[in-house]
Amino acid sequence: MAASASSLLAAAASSSYAAISPRLPRGAPAAASIPSPSRHSCSSLRASPARRHQSRFVASAAPTMQPPAESKVSTVVDVDLGDRSYPIYIGAGLLDEPDLLQRHVHGKRVLVVTNTTVAPLYLEKVTWALTHNNPNVSVESVILPDGEKYKDMDTLMKVFDKAIETRLDRRCTFVALGGGVIGDMCGFAAAAFLRGVNFIQIPTTLMAQVDSSVGGKTGINHPLGKNLIGAFYQPQCVLIDTDTLNTLPDRELASGIAEVVKYGLIRDAPFFEWQEKNMSELLAREPSALAYAIKRSCENKAEVVAQDEKESGLRATLNLGHTFGHAIETGTGYGAWLHGEAVAAGTVMATDMSHRLGWIDESIKKRVVDILERAKLPITPPESMTVEKFKSIMAVDKKVADGLLRLILLKGPLGSCVFTGEYDRKALDETLHAFCNN
Amino acid sequence: MAASASSLLAAAASSSYAAISPRLPRGAPAAASIPSPSRHSCSSLRASPARRHQSRFVASAAPTMQPPAESKVSTVVDVDLGDRSYPIYIGAGLLDEPDLLQRHVHGKRVLVVTNTTVAPLYLEKVTWALTHNNPNVSVESVILPDGEKYKDMDTLMKVFDKAIETRLDRRCTFVALGGGVIGDMCGFAAAAFLRGVNFIQIPTTLMAQVDSSVGGKTGINHPLGKNLIGAFYQPQCVLIDTDTLNTLPDRELASGIAEVVKYGLIRDAPFFEWQEKNMSELLAREPSALAYAIKRSCENKAEVVAQDEKESGLRATLNLGHTFGHAIETGTGYGAWLHGEAVAAGTVMATDMSHRLGWIDESIKKRVVDILERAKLPITPPESMTVEKFKSIMAVDKKVADGLLRLILLKGPLGSCVFTGEYDRKALDETLHAFCNN
Repeated sequence: MAASASSLLAAAASSSYAAISPRLPRGAPAAASIPSPSRHSCSSLRASPARRHQSRFVASAAPTMQPPAESKVSTVVDVDLGDRSYPIYIGAGLLDEPDLLQRHVHGKRVLVVTNTTVAPLYLEKVTWALTHNNPNVSVESVILPDGEKYKDMDTLMKVFDKAIETRLDRRCTFVALGGGVIGDMCGFAAAAFLRGVNFIQIPTTLMAQVDSSVGGKTGINHPLGKNLIGAFYQPQCVLIDTDTLNTLPDRELASGIAEVVKYGLIRDAPFFEWQEKNMSELLAREPSALAYAIKRSCENKAEVVAQDEKESGLRATLNLGHTFGHAIETGTGYGAWLHGEAVAAGTVMATDMSHRLGWIDESIKKRVVDILERAKLPITPPESMTVEKFKSIMAVDKKVADGLLRLILLKGPLGSCVFTGEYDRKALDETLHAFCNN
Repeated sequence: MAASASSLLAAAASSSYAAISPRLPRGAPAAASIPSPSRHSCSSLRASPARRHQSRFVASAAPTMQPPAESKVSTVVDVDLGDRSYPIYIGAGLLDEPDLLQRHVHGKRVLVVTNTTVAPLYLEKVTWALTHNNPNVSVESVILPDGEKYKDMDTLMKVFDKAIETRLDRRCTFVALGGGVIGDMCGFAAAAFLRGVNFIQIPTTLMAQVDSSVGGKTGINHPLGKNLIGAFYQPQCVLIDTDTLNTLPDRELASGIAEVVKYGLIRDAPFFEWQEKNMSELLAREPSALAYAIKRSCENKAEVVAQDEKESGLRATLNLGHTFGHAIETGTGYGAWLHGEAVAAGTVMATDMSHRLGWIDESIKKRVVDILERAKLPITPPESMTVEKFKSIMAVDKKVADGLLRLILLKGPLGSCVFTGEYDRKALDETLHAFCNN
């Protein structure tokens, strides 16, 4: 095992992308005999930054050494939306399966939208997956700057510029390769380019894999508010290669866990209890724990979206903690806090308010704070967020209707929530004053 | 009658908008006894610019003098799109009927999107119609610069800015008040604001009334091509007050006629024959002729859109002449030619090509040139449009599929066309060389 690992690392050293390149000979007898590192040993490598870098090569290279005949799809979650239904594929090494991706490509031309962080890691691999044994397809790419602060109209225009300059037509496919920002922007670009072209989501962060890539919400931010400009637009498929999490920074991993916790709180008490038992495994990136968390999150999201695609009501419950969270993101300047970090603090605030209203027991409030703290997520907003700042930003939230701010609040036993504008304003005030300076 | 007209003009002189203001007392006995000027005498006033200005006041003021009890809706054309179905109201003086407009407003807040030309003419009137006996509704407006060259992302952002700064929420309604550019931009803004809010079309040009306001195509231009960014998004209703044509410049009227001619050519031979007989009446703005042309155009468009909302095939036929026409608009700089002017020249080119392919008789080609010439529309592209310029711009047309340019061409008897990529490229080359410099 030690010898195998060192030979993999030697290959990696000779070419910066060699180890993750799927162009290595696949399924050759010598290679096939090398046992792949167990998922758990991979994850345990993440203790220090130096070892994390090492583990990336091992984990990414390993799947190419496995026999290719056997499909690596471990789970398919279907999003049932009539003629806009699509599958979510979840598994390790899915980007090593060209067939899976290619079956969802429409037309002969693909535009991969990605960013400066993800492109060096996965663009070559995705391009290979799109074109392997598929000479008719050509791939263009546009590499955007990384970060929530670039989720704006100017950056979006770069996608349109590229699509138009390279003369893509209606039969092309856009591929979102990256986290939530890339997925939201690529999806909106696909919705608006020529009034709509096909697109595929390849989420590479936990946040995107458990939440933003599923359900068709796309859009960009406005300086005055988050996600205020966009479209409901469904992808052809979502392809979640869990191996991509091997390159994810710890802070980004925790950010995604905030959304995982959300599903438990709003509708899935057993899932919340499972998280309480398995948080250490999740933080240690134990593959089976991550795979289960992703699968169960996608199942929850798919069920909600299938019932309420355009957010008439039920779907809004997926925004637990997000009204407070979006205010933090907008108020601190997009990107200062990661989305999940802001959502975590927002979830604690929504839980506090639910408790003040007498809608949940103190024990639930305590469990929410505990689980988020264990995930190393913030449980209070940043000091710069005053009461007034919260109020003025929340006034432009998409969930305001006829001037009334509606919120998702916990109510009843664990796993139950409401989406309502009918609550005592005093409780909101008290929560804001408890968490913020005036 | 002479006394009535002069007293109206005196009222107009005392306040620049008094005569078109619907806030004048309505249905008062003295006023109700004044016979409204006949439509024909109105239209005949348009012979000189000086008289056209005069006729505007007379025509616009007249409806406010009629008894309000009787509805002025002369025609309703339904666009049948399942749960996205909506009515097109066509009639003189419809903006004097608050009920008609108000029944399609959702929520308590309205954003009227209009331009610097239309706002002084109709914004006050529309605001009145939205708020008359309706104190719960408040109206915001955003006045954009006028012209195709402003149909871009920067101008679109002004709509979002206004909507967000004034804290509009999901239950608001956007109202497009203007021609095709305003309708396309307001519609796209409504599609994207908070991922979709309600909107209403109030088209004030013939072009918008017979074509662009109906069917849900919305969008903006890119420097490299027309309407490349947008959405299919249907309005709550289209309200066509034919009185607004009284303020339309002759050149804009002719531009709209190009689209009227199109319906005859692609699918409605009797309508084309009617136009051949009634072109003088249309150009003289004879109200019954205009009303019929608008109604029959909307019926044709509604039938096509109901069968093929997202332009899988049939709907593309509404773009006869538009591939050539869009190239002219893009190539000469948006706004140098009006849309219908470019479409007219494009229609002649498409007809010429159809004839070269042997798909139509020479007599049809001659009738197309004749009718467009009678409408004082251009029948050749501008000199600056070289063969190469046409080819390079047409290569990014939305109807290109997998690299193949598909065109709408006439084929068979009058009123028949095809949408196809299967034609002899030589015919396209010959047409381009016949109409353009190298």
